[in-house]
Amino acid sequence: MVAVVGDDFSFEDIEFLKNRNVDLEGLEVAEGQTFHWEGLYHENMNMRDTISTDLGVFEGFDPKIPETVKTAEFLLLANIDPALQLKVLDQIKSPRLIAFDTMNFWIEGRRAEVEEMISKVDLVILNDEEIFQLTNEYSPLAGAKMLLEMGPKFIVIKKGEHGSMLVSDDSEPFICPAYPIEAPKDPTGAGDTFAGAMVGYLAATNDVSPLSMRRAMVYGSVAASFTVEEFGLGRLKDIEIKELDSRFRELQEMTEF
Amino acid sequence: MVAVVGDDFSFEDIEFLKNRNVDLEGLEVAEGQTFHWEGLYHENMNMRDTISTDLGVFEGFDPKIPETVKTAEFLLLANIDPALQLKVLDQIKSPRLIAFDTMNFWIEGRRAEVEEMISKVDLVILNDEEIFQLTNEYSPLAGAKMLLEMGPKFIVIKKGEHGSMLVSDDSEPFICPAYPIEAPKDPTGAGDTFAGAMVGYLAATNDVSPLSMRRAMVYGSVAASFTVEEFGLGRLKDIEIKELDSRFRELQEMTEF
Repeated sequence: MVAVVGDDFSFEDIEFLKNRNVDLEGLEVAEGQTFHWEGLYHENMNMRDTISTDLGVFEGFDPKIPETVKTAEFLLLANIDPALQLKVLDQIKSPRLIAFDTMNFWIEGRRAEVEEMISKVDLVILNDEEIFQLTNEYSPLAGAKMLLEMGPKFIVIKKGEHGSMLVSDDSEPFICPAYPIEAPKDPTGAGDTFAGAMVGYLAATNDVSPLSMRRAMVYGSVAASFTVEEFGLGRLKDIEIKELDSRFRELQEMTEF
Repeated sequence: MVAVVGDDFSFEDIEFLKNRNVDLEGLEVAEGQTFHWEGLYHENMNMRDTISTDLGVFEGFDPKIPETVKTAEFLLLANIDPALQLKVLDQIKSPRLIAFDTMNFWIEGRRAEVEEMISKVDLVILNDEEIFQLTNEYSPLAGAKMLLEMGPKFIVIKKGEHGSMLVSDDSEPFICPAYPIEAPKDPTGAGDTFAGAMVGYLAATNDVSPLSMRRAMVYGSVAASFTVEEFGLGRLKDIEIKELDSRFRELQEMTEF
């Protein structure tokens, strides 16, 4: 993990990551406030309005990549200023798969840099609104095909409770189900969980075949289904791998015909 | 088919149905105007506002069921005044499966009758907004489970381009994909096509096993994907069964993991 947090960040949360064997050599604790996003979710939780985005210590962040990370084969450039994503990308030697996430905030304010990033990565993960923002296409599938022309091999379209779709030039789309949750509490971070678990699955299996890409998305979907069940990391903190596996198999049964 | 049209209805459209071997003994042509609905679709085509609903000859319609129809085993009560749906239901002897469709207009104006119908049928087909209207549940799955308690064996939740879901007490939900269409022209009638093709598949196979229910939904989904590609019956009029089969198989490939 390469990231920056402010000196307001809780020690317990860092300890938690350590105990889960996350390599924190690239985690910088800087003077100032941690990045902060505030938003309002509509009642159906599929739409949200941003109230404020405070960059805090992100503003002056100059990511320094530890030597052990420079040879990483799977790289997820999570949502952050695209100029910083570019700086990180330039320091990684020859990753096998580069995944890229962003959000409406950067597409609005840093469009050129976002487009440059899209042209340099393998896998772009966006929700349907962000695809519309970038391509002006109401059909996310048509929009994803426009984005493929900019260079990436894969586009993942996230649609919240409606699941997601994988679009690539090589094969027909994959329609990935969302695990149905009757009483979601907080969708914040579901997209990050999805992207993290998806790339984590690819790195763990070291397999980017079409079937592995599909299964990685389903693991992302399943992991995100736990995120929305509680606020913050509430549910993720005590999750066990067998619970992920169990929802994965359930989704196989729920989609079979 | 049991229905009424006004004397403004085109002869060509009746001829078309005859040529497709639709039994039209139950089709009444009455003096006055055919039912007319007018609405405005939002740009993403997933939401629409009703501008006007003119019942026309529906207003005085008293459905008379031909003897040959009274012994039908599969009955689809398509969207119409629930009082009329009830009259039809009362005249059918002992159908094996009764499917029921309705719309926001009737839920608003005839709620008690809609609820009575739900308690009397086997399969209820509604979109996510209608389920919210009936149950006040933002989660369509939670809403569908509330509807199951009113009596039906199956609830189908339609979600437009996001597919549909089958919910029943007997087994876990089925997540049914929508066939992705890049440039839909007109979604009007997609829900009717879905319901008609679904019940048509069940009647043709005479099989209401869990697997057959799932496949019936996928055929409904595939048939609806053709409806939205053109205005009116444009695309449905020249469709061949092998085209339906081909999209069915494509959907199997698009959902496999």
